[in-house]
Amino acid sequence: MEEEMAFDWRTIDWHEGRVRLIDQTRLPDAVEWLELGTVEEVARAIETMQVRPPPPTAVNLFWALERMEGVAESFREFRVRTPEPSSRAALEAMKGRLLEEARRVLAEDVAANRQMGRFGAGLLPDGSRVLTHCNAGALATVGYGTALGVIRAAVEAGKRIEVFADETRPRLQGMKLTAWELHRDGIPVTLITDNMAGSLMRQGKIDCALVGADRIAANGDVANKIGTYPVAVLCREHRLPFYVAAPLSTLDWTLESGDQIPIEARDSAEVTHLGPHRIAPDGVEALNPAFDITPARLVTALITERGVLHHPCRETLQRWKNEGGVRVQGVE
Amino acid sequence: MEEEMAFDWRTIDWHEGRVRLIDQTRLPDAVEWLELGTVEEVARAIETMQVRPPPPTAVNLFWALERMEGVAESFREFRVRTPEPSSRAALEAMKGRLLEEARRVLAEDVAANRQMGRFGAGLLPDGSRVLTHCNAGALATVGYGTALGVIRAAVEAGKRIEVFADETRPRLQGMKLTAWELHRDGIPVTLITDNMAGSLMRQGKIDCALVGADRIAANGDVANKIGTYPVAVLCREHRLPFYVAAPLSTLDWTLESGDQIPIEARDSAEVTHLGPHRIAPDGVEALNPAFDITPARLVTALITERGVLHHPCRETLQRWKNEGGVRVQGVE
Repeated sequence: MEEEMAFDWRTIDWHEGRVRLIDQTRLPDAVEWLELGTVEEVARAIETMQVRPPPPTAVNLFWALERMEGVAESFREFRVRTPEPSSRAALEAMKGRLLEEARRVLAEDVAANRQMGRFGAGLLPDGSRVLTHCNAGALATVGYGTALGVIRAAVEAGKRIEVFADETRPRLQGMKLTAWELHRDGIPVTLITDNMAGSLMRQGKIDCALVGADRIAANGDVANKIGTYPVAVLCREHRLPFYVAAPLSTLDWTLESGDQIPIEARDSAEVTHLGPHRIAPDGVEALNPAFDITPARLVTALITERGVLHHPCRETLQRWKNEGGVRVQGVE
Repeated sequence: MEEEMAFDWRTIDWHEGRVRLIDQTRLPDAVEWLELGTVEEVARAIETMQVRPPPPTAVNLFWALERMEGVAESFREFRVRTPEPSSRAALEAMKGRLLEEARRVLAEDVAANRQMGRFGAGLLPDGSRVLTHCNAGALATVGYGTALGVIRAAVEAGKRIEVFADETRPRLQGMKLTAWELHRDGIPVTLITDNMAGSLMRQGKIDCALVGADRIAANGDVANKIGTYPVAVLCREHRLPFYVAAPLSTLDWTLESGDQIPIEARDSAEVTHLGPHRIAPDGVEALNPAFDITPARLVTALITERGVLHHPCRETLQRWKNEGGVRVQGVE
């Protein structure tokens, strides 16, 4: 069934007045598309994790919301200037403008991922064995993906790439989403538990790590899924590159460092339970921080839609901001 | 129910001609004791993981078997010297000697763990927050435990100890056994997924790591449950002590280094399945190495029943072997 569907990494779309998206709670067992017609239906899909909600940590959610607010704001100005339209026509006009802006955000997201992929692919030599953590793929974006977009672009450029996917406890996004996406694309992927990567690195079986980011501070510190930081430490120990692929909208210039990024504490039942069943001993408490912070000094390069920034830090990022562009290095 | 049982960390015993042990597949939901009367019943309990089988990696299994063989051997010599006993009486005599030796091994194991605990407790200051990985507790030994024995001894000495227990994928021994043992003892324990320890260390919430060992090479390299090595690397990164508690029978003088320790590759279904249910995407392969190797340079100290050996390496271990004892340091 699922093989017959047209699936080109576009995981969310607008179709005949409704939001169309893949039900992520059914993956990897089934690919089912939901069609949502109301705000309440979308809210329910987020609450039930059918589509992964961006954590408060994800700064580009607010960036997108601000763009939409900007449209609404300009519409109010338009109304002041032309005070006589019927309220119904005014509403329709605003809806049209908001939809247009949303489609633009969506198209820009895919284009940014494609561009990021092309830049990042230059960092992956033919034959690379790449470690991933969590899911920074089509299912984490509108389509194509950030970290997985880089891998897809390298494969499209004819390179042989092999992926080791951290399963990513507690929610197993690496197992259920990343391994699923890559296997579906025919890219060789091997699943490992999060505690196996160190041993594989020590045996020389991994060439680099490549992850996404939820938020990047002005000094280059990276907030990403819990378990990202140990991957970066292990890369440093084994002198392997640690790459972060993220759109520029992930950069939060208001934060001096990663220490200012609040870490969401999620329900500990995600650790102690599997579905409705408790697997941990009764009475035992668990922690469940959603993210950790990787200090910029451990990041070999930041891959963005504007180019690759090696050794990201306050100075290089500030220079990029001032010059309106990043120094593009290592791009084939 | 379970609170009423006499449970003093003795998890396996010999009772009225039968082996008595805790069914580990029922933990943490229920504490059920099995009574096994035949070799076949014991073999079945090992196959079904009701009692954890020692991996080939565990050198002290062979050490114990050699002791039993030694008894059988001496019995054959006895028969040659006194050639006329009835064969039935001879058989009974041998059974008695074997049982006696088995009881001695059992008693020595508990005594060694108690001794190890007393030595190791000196390394844990009052208020220590200790990271554990896998289960090196009463359930991994005859009773009391190695790493958990050290924690128990520190608590018995009046120290406040708090434990963070790695859940230890894929089989979750940290969640199901370590957290259960400690919670039952009233020792504060918080469960974490394996990928959370790095972030906790970075936040200054962990003071040291304390693990067991399945096998230690002559140069001090340690084979232990997969995920131990990354813990050691993270300790080094954060300048935290990384302690290994293991009886001297764990030392394998025939191995030059950890590179010579064969790593058991277990069934990948332990990663891809939960019980009978596949949770990984169809067609995706997984790795499942049972152990990893932690190089001796990352081990702050080796805690044994003969004392604490700081900075274990080929030279210090060889000197211990030659002198018939370890240099005891840091013991209160």
